Amino acid sequence: MWRKILNSFNSVKCSAHNPSLLANNVKYLSSFVSGEPTGPLVKTAIPGPRSLAMLSEMKKIQISDAVQLFADYSKSIGNYLYDVDGNILLDVYTQISSIPLGYNHPELLDVLQDKENIRTFINRPALGVFPGENYPQRVQNSLLRIAPKGHTEVTTMACGSCSNENAYKAIFVWYRRKQRGDKSYTPEEETSCVMNQLPGVSDLTLLSFKGAFHGRTFGTLITTHTKPVHKLDIPTKDWPIGTFPRYKYPLEEFVRENEEEDRRCLAEVEELFDRYNKRGKTVAGVVIEPIQSEGGDHHASPAFFQELQRIAKKNGAALLIDEVQTGGGTTGEFWCHDHFNLDHPVDIVTYSKKMLIGGYFSLPEFRPREGYRIFNTWMGEPSKVILLEKVVEIIKRDKLIENVRVTGDVLLNGLKDFGKRYPNVVKNVRGRGTFCAFDCVSMAKRDQLVEQLKVEGIQSGGAGPVAVRLRPSLVFQPHHASIFLDRLEKALKKMD
Amino acid sequence: MWRKILNSFNSVKCSAHNPSLLANNVKYLSSFVSGEPTGPLVKTAIPGPRSLAMLSEMKKIQISDAVQLFADYSKSIGNYLYDVDGNILLDVYTQISSIPLGYNHPELLDVLQDKENIRTFINRPALGVFPGENYPQRVQNSLLRIAPKGHTEVTTMACGSCSNENAYKAIFVWYRRKQRGDKSYTPEEETSCVMNQLPGVSDLTLLSFKGAFHGRTFGTLITTHTKPVHKLDIPTKDWPIGTFPRYKYPLEEFVRENEEEDRRCLAEVEELFDRYNKRGKTVAGVVIEPIQSEGGDHHASPAFFQELQRIAKKNGAALLIDEVQTGGGTTGEFWCHDHFNLDHPVDIVTYSKKMLIGGYFSLPEFRPREGYRIFNTWMGEPSKVILLEKVVEIIKRDKLIENVRVTGDVLLNGLKDFGKRYPNVVKNVRGRGTFCAFDCVSMAKRDQLVEQLKVEGIQSGGAGPVAVRLRPSLVFQPHHASIFLDRLEKALKKMD
Repeated sequence: MWRKILNSFNSVKCSAHNPSLLANNVKYLSSFVSGEPTGPLVKTAIPGPRSLAMLSEMKKIQISDAVQLFADYSKSIGNYLYDVDGNILLDVYTQISSIPLGYNHPELLDVLQDKENIRTFINRPALGVFPGENYPQRVQNSLLRIAPKGHTEVTTMACGSCSNENAYKAIFVWYRRKQRGDKSYTPEEETSCVMNQLPGVSDLTLLSFKGAFHGRTFGTLITTHTKPVHKLDIPTKDWPIGTFPRYKYPLEEFVRENEEEDRRCLAEVEELFDRYNKRGKTVAGVVIEPIQSEGGDHHASPAFFQELQRIAKKNGAALLIDEVQTGGGTTGEFWCHDHFNLDHPVDIVTYSKKMLIGGYFSLPEFRPREGYRIFNTWMGEPSKVILLEKVVEIIKRDKLIENVRVTGDVLLNGLKDFGKRYPNVVKNVRGRGTFCAFDCVSMAKRDQLVEQLKVEGIQSGGAGPVAVRLRPSLVFQPHHASIFLDRLEKALKKMD
Repeated sequence: MWRKILNSFNSVKCSAHNPSLLANNVKYLSSFVSGEPTGPLVKTAIPGPRSLAMLSEMKKIQISDAVQLFADYSKSIGNYLYDVDGNILLDVYTQISSIPLGYNHPELLDVLQDKENIRTFINRPALGVFPGENYPQRVQNSLLRIAPKGHTEVTTMACGSCSNENAYKAIFVWYRRKQRGDKSYTPEEETSCVMNQLPGVSDLTLLSFKGAFHGRTFGTLITTHTKPVHKLDIPTKDWPIGTFPRYKYPLEEFVRENEEEDRRCLAEVEELFDRYNKRGKTVAGVVIEPIQSEGGDHHASPAFFQELQRIAKKNGAALLIDEVQTGGGTTGEFWCHDHFNLDHPVDIVTYSKKMLIGGYFSLPEFRPREGYRIFNTWMGEPSKVILLEKVVEIIKRDKLIENVRVTGDVLLNGLKDFGKRYPNVVKNVRGRGTFCAFDCVSMAKRDQLVEQLKVEGIQSGGAGPVAVRLRPSLVFQPHHASIFLDRLEKALKKMD
């Protein structure tokens, strides 16, 4: 089916401006962001000479080994990232999955034409102490408009790591309050905690998973288990680490094996609860991504998550779902865990990236009883809430989640077809919405493919040791998917 | 002397618009930000009815126990914070010390009139991977233009906690590289670290001080020792905690006692190095504020810091000076440690708040050898760099550090005079530049004074158990200090 759509697009030279030959089920007849080019354009090696000159300046200032190119954010538009050498890349990576509506969406530019809004951008308050006029209403119009099921409370933070750090703290505070009952802190607790001593501090733990990524600050890093480069040399703690399922693909051919994998991983979680609880390192919560992203785009079944929630509840532990990368609509639901049909609302859901602001949604029992327990100077930023308000309005109005579903079908079916036709390069195709990935046979082959894709005008990214991850924006449409698949096939042919 | 200035101001009704009677040494004859009112105006109890209505909305969404009022950031101007009930407060707290040039500085508003700049505000890149055109130049024009002595490298982060978290990581990475010499990581290190095990992770520690505040995320919280509310229930680590000097005031009357206090604290630092190093919890660095701010505005002498740096060097440990609150000019030097006449540049200096963006300056040996060791999605934000570029330009052009020195003299002398005349309320007056504080006899009295100041139209804040801290912006001038002292005296009279 995707081939039909792809062919129809190819026949109009992938032009967003002449989409009359679209297949019937593709509802969006032009780009959501006007002014996009008709396709990528690669003029130089990437990074090109101007990028390299800027890079040499940047290297004088700081480590810059991860820099791929210098972008021209004035010219970048919609799904297209322009670089300073005049190259135009179709961007399916979107700043590590953090651009919801593509570049320079005209209605976001308009937000900053409003004089009142401009004042919000330059007068950054200490939000927890001196919030601005109508701030609660702004939060209602943005974050709470897309709150996960069962959630009416939200805390804002400046970035993804801080979102998880503070959500972890909220879990520990909640857990100890359950233990204390109605009693207040003892004087001994108050004195000892300041000097990092029990009983004021706790020996509680959080259970995380192999291959998980929750951030690089000290608390989140305890629960991150992707690459040595994040972890080497940094002091940490002994918290339980479970196994996130590793499925065999295609899923429909390995139903029994993958169910067995779920059972094995869940039994291990139960065993870890027992072991750590008995050792006095009580497990206060379970922290998990709905799709392990940085770790290599590993999926787990709804049944796995349902049972995990039951195990956490049975043990009196919180379940935190980290939607920093998966949240915001690109899985075809606003929150990826909406796919899981869970028994109960998730205790805590963290967000950042495409939400423009960080933070977490939490059930009412996770609200601390005292001010300043979850606090910092900025607590996020109202200017981001204003932008998010507009983003959410556009997502609803333009039915962008529906667009993700339609486009995701094109993308995933296209990748599956390549999986059959280029089995030596494209393996284990998987995805929800446009949040898709596939594996290569080795890290070297994966890195080579990502480079080759750039030569073909595609900005993509790796995930884990061998995966290519696709993280297009919400305005990535079937005709963009078509261009991507076309370019990917060109790259694959050069790999074979 | 300050009385003379104060009287001259009182005689012109504290008007910034008729400053002709200013004392000779007050060089600035009008406000740096035009459009300021002539003084505070209090119409309602604070929080007033509109603030209370918004607060009740906010309480539905999140914990709001620290909220003092809802501000009108459209009307707020210069040193004056307007609230939604029409109250006008002279702000000597500035959003927990995070507003460099007061509210709505016209030249900061102009930054957002520029169409190119607007695009920087809505296209937030993953700075470590896809920086924008001329970003290195922007960093040169802003952060590196005011780099601490001996520093040419800078890393950007989104907030103060992340600045310290990542600076701590840079210290651990640096220390272990020294230990390894030219050897690379062993396969065992690479495998073990991902599972939170030695030898890949480390048992290194950082030495912090009682009363220190470096943040509330897990790593920084290990080194924060202010209030139980920050620390209770949160798992932590056993790292060495020294004693920050507690001086007797006035300093000139207790020279011998305070020198003895320095010696005692430094001897304890040496002892902690020995004890932790022997236990295999090697101290990789010392983390300290140049003035303990959140902990209660505790100062230490230049001699203390000089010797502390020598002790760190002798032990092969890094010295990190946390200038998140003290940096940016309000101590009368751009960096507070500029007052200390240290033997060597400081290894790492962290910043945030009035710098608008977080991050750290570090000497070249603290640069990791591999990309992604110090990394996150956003790595700060270019829009903040653009604003900071303008802020730095204005600080230099308007000689705002000089203004801080002149105004600080007025403020500190005024407070010292109150210390003599209201000795039951104003104790231990201290400060550098306008970064001033004094103690009350108890927390209850301090809280009462901060409330009474609000009734008089002054927004101030507490620090530690008994201190009132003053954190005016860089555009706080002698005539503002005069108004503040006048209102403070009114409040003091009601306290006696």
